[in-house]
Amino acid sequence: MIFYQLFEKESSTYTYILGDSLSKEAVIIDPVMENLERDLKLLNDLDLKLLFILDTHVHADHVTSSRFLRSKTGAQIGIGKAYGVSFADLSLSQNDVLSFGNHQIEVLHTPGHTEGCVSYLCESRVFTGDALLIRGCGRTDFQEGSSESLFDSIKNKLYVLPEETEVYPAHDYKGLSHSTIGLEKKLNSRINDSTTLEEFKRTMENLHLPRPKKIDEALPCNLSGGMKIPELSPAELNKLEPKPIIIDVRRKEEFNNELGHIEGARLITQGEELDQWLEIQNKETRIVFVCRSGRRSADATAEALLQAFTDVFNLEGGMLKWNELHLPVSKT
Amino acid sequence: MIFYQLFEKESSTYTYILGDSLSKEAVIIDPVMENLERDLKLLNDLDLKLLFILDTHVHADHVTSSRFLRSKTGAQIGIGKAYGVSFADLSLSQNDVLSFGNHQIEVLHTPGHTEGCVSYLCESRVFTGDALLIRGCGRTDFQEGSSESLFDSIKNKLYVLPEETEVYPAHDYKGLSHSTIGLEKKLNSRINDSTTLEEFKRTMENLHLPRPKKIDEALPCNLSGGMKIPELSPAELNKLEPKPIIIDVRRKEEFNNELGHIEGARLITQGEELDQWLEIQNKETRIVFVCRSGRRSADATAEALLQAFTDVFNLEGGMLKWNELHLPVSKT
Repeated sequence: MIFYQLFEKESSTYTYILGDSLSKEAVIIDPVMENLERDLKLLNDLDLKLLFILDTHVHADHVTSSRFLRSKTGAQIGIGKAYGVSFADLSLSQNDVLSFGNHQIEVLHTPGHTEGCVSYLCESRVFTGDALLIRGCGRTDFQEGSSESLFDSIKNKLYVLPEETEVYPAHDYKGLSHSTIGLEKKLNSRINDSTTLEEFKRTMENLHLPRPKKIDEALPCNLSGGMKIPELSPAELNKLEPKPIIIDVRRKEEFNNELGHIEGARLITQGEELDQWLEIQNKETRIVFVCRSGRRSADATAEALLQAFTDVFNLEGGMLKWNELHLPVSKT
Repeated sequence: MIFYQLFEKESSTYTYILGDSLSKEAVIIDPVMENLERDLKLLNDLDLKLLFILDTHVHADHVTSSRFLRSKTGAQIGIGKAYGVSFADLSLSQNDVLSFGNHQIEVLHTPGHTEGCVSYLCESRVFTGDALLIRGCGRTDFQEGSSESLFDSIKNKLYVLPEETEVYPAHDYKGLSHSTIGLEKKLNSRINDSTTLEEFKRTMENLHLPRPKKIDEALPCNLSGGMKIPELSPAELNKLEPKPIIIDVRRKEEFNNELGHIEGARLITQGEELDQWLEIQNKETRIVFVCRSGRRSADATAEALLQAFTDVFNLEGGMLKWNELHLPVSKT
C-alpha cells in the first residue's frame, strides 16, 4: 500500500493519502485548503486516481479542501451522517465499508468531539480524527461535544482494536506522528485503559480551553465542504433584474430533459469546458450556476470563487426545486 | 522495527527514532534542542535503550540536542568525520556500520551541503539530511558547500540505491513526509536522473537564498553538540583567584590514577550523583568541571548550563592536558 502522512503547520493538521499500489486507486483523509495544490500535485506525481475524499469530522480549526478536490478529481466526498450536510456524496455510518483497489476502509462512528465524528479503520491503521489523539483526545466543549459519548467511542470502538493497530490522528501539537492502541491504553493522559467515566468527565470539564481561533471562519466553510457558497433561491433568481448570466453546468443530454432548463441559460458542462470558459471571463461578471440538484453547481460556484470571481451564485436546489415551484422552463 | 518520524515546526526539521522491537536498542537521528524533553519521554514510553545519537550534519538552522541526550542516556554521538569536532564519540566515514539489535545502519558520506554531511542507510530507508530533500536538495552556498560535491553525492551515492528505497530528509517545508529514490530521480526539481553537472551548478548558483535566520546562534552550538561550552585553559584555572569549586566528574577509580587530580578537587561522578549534587547548589556558584580529556566534563558543564547555572566552566583538555603542562597534581 502507498501511504503518506502530510502536515499543515499552522493548525498542526495531518492529512493522509492511502493508495493501492496496483490499481493506483486512492483515498485522502482530512485534506486542508492551504495545501490543495500540494495534494493535487502529489496525487498526480504518484499517478494516483482519487476515489474518496474523507473528512473525519467538520473541523473547527482549519478549512477542508474537499469540495475543491472533488471538483478537480471527480472523487466522492464522505463524511459522518450525523452532520446531515448536503455537499457530501456519502453520509457515513458505523460499519460502512469503502473499497479502493484491494484495500478496504471500515467506518467507525466515534462521536464525542462532535456528534458526527467518524474514524476510518484501514487494515493495521486507524485514522481517529479528533476523537483519539496521541496521549490525549479531542475537546468536548462545543459543536455538540459530549464527554460521555467520547468516553464510549474511545473505550468501545477504538480501545477494542488490536493493541498493535497504529493510531493516526488529525492533529498533533508536539510533532509526534503516530501511536498505537496499546500505547494509548497505557499512556493516554486523559483516558487510559483504567480511566472511569467519572474521572474522564472531570478531566474534560476542567480543561477550560480557549475558543479555537479559526472557528467562526472554519465552521461555516466546512459545513459546505470548504467554502461558504453564496446562493440564490429560485424565486430570487426569477425576479433578479438585470438578468444575470446563467450557466447550466449539467451534461449536454440533461439540458433538454424532463426538467428542462432556464430560459436564456447557457450550457457549459462542468469540467474542462467550464474551466476554459471561466478563464476568459471578467472576474466581476455576475454569474449564476445551475445544475439538477444544486450540488455540481455549488462546486462550480466554489471554483469560480477560488479563481477570484466576486459576484457568483449557486441556484439553490437546482432544476429540481425550480420545477417544484412551477417556474418557467424551456425544453428546446 | 519501531520507526518514528517526529517534527519540529519552527525549523521544519524531522527527527527520526529507529528501534529494534526485540532488544529495544535504538538510534535517534537529528534530534532538536526544543524537543529534548519530548524525545526523552518518547524513548522512555517506548521502553527504548538509546545506543546512538546521529547527526546528518552540523546544522545551521536549529540546535542539536545531541550532547544533552548523551548526558541523559549514555548513548554515543556520531557525526561526519570531516567536521573534526571533539564532542563526538564516533567520527563517521563512508561504509562505517552501526548496529542496533538485529538492524544495521550504513554510513554514506554525502558532502556538498557541507563537507561533513553523511546519510544513514537502514534497510529500505535512507536518511539524507540536507543532501537530498523531497523534490529538492540542500543549499551549497555556505559552510564549505559545493555544488560539484553535492552533484556527485546525490548521483553516485543516493541515486544508485534501489528505486523503492524510502527517502527521509532532515527538512520539508511543505509538510511532505518522505519520498523514494525512484520518485526523486524522476521528479526532483533541482537534480533528476538526467540533470547534468553544468545544469545543476547553474540551478544552485541562481538560487540567491537568504542567510539562515539562526545560523549565528546554531553553528557554534552545533559544533559543540548543542551548546557553546565556556572553557578555561589549564593555565587560566591554575592562576584563578579566588579558587573556584573544582568538580572532578570521573569514576572513583580514576581519581587517584596515574593522572591524579587537581588539589582541592571534589570527586562527584557524572550521572545521578552529579545530578543530585547540582540540584542543591546555588545557581550562581562558580564551578569548574574536570575529567580525563575534557569531554565528559563538557557534558557536565552543558548540563549545569541547562539547569540555569550562570558561572560554570569546562577545563579544556582535562587531566591529560593538565599533566602535559606539568601543573601540580595530587594522587591521594
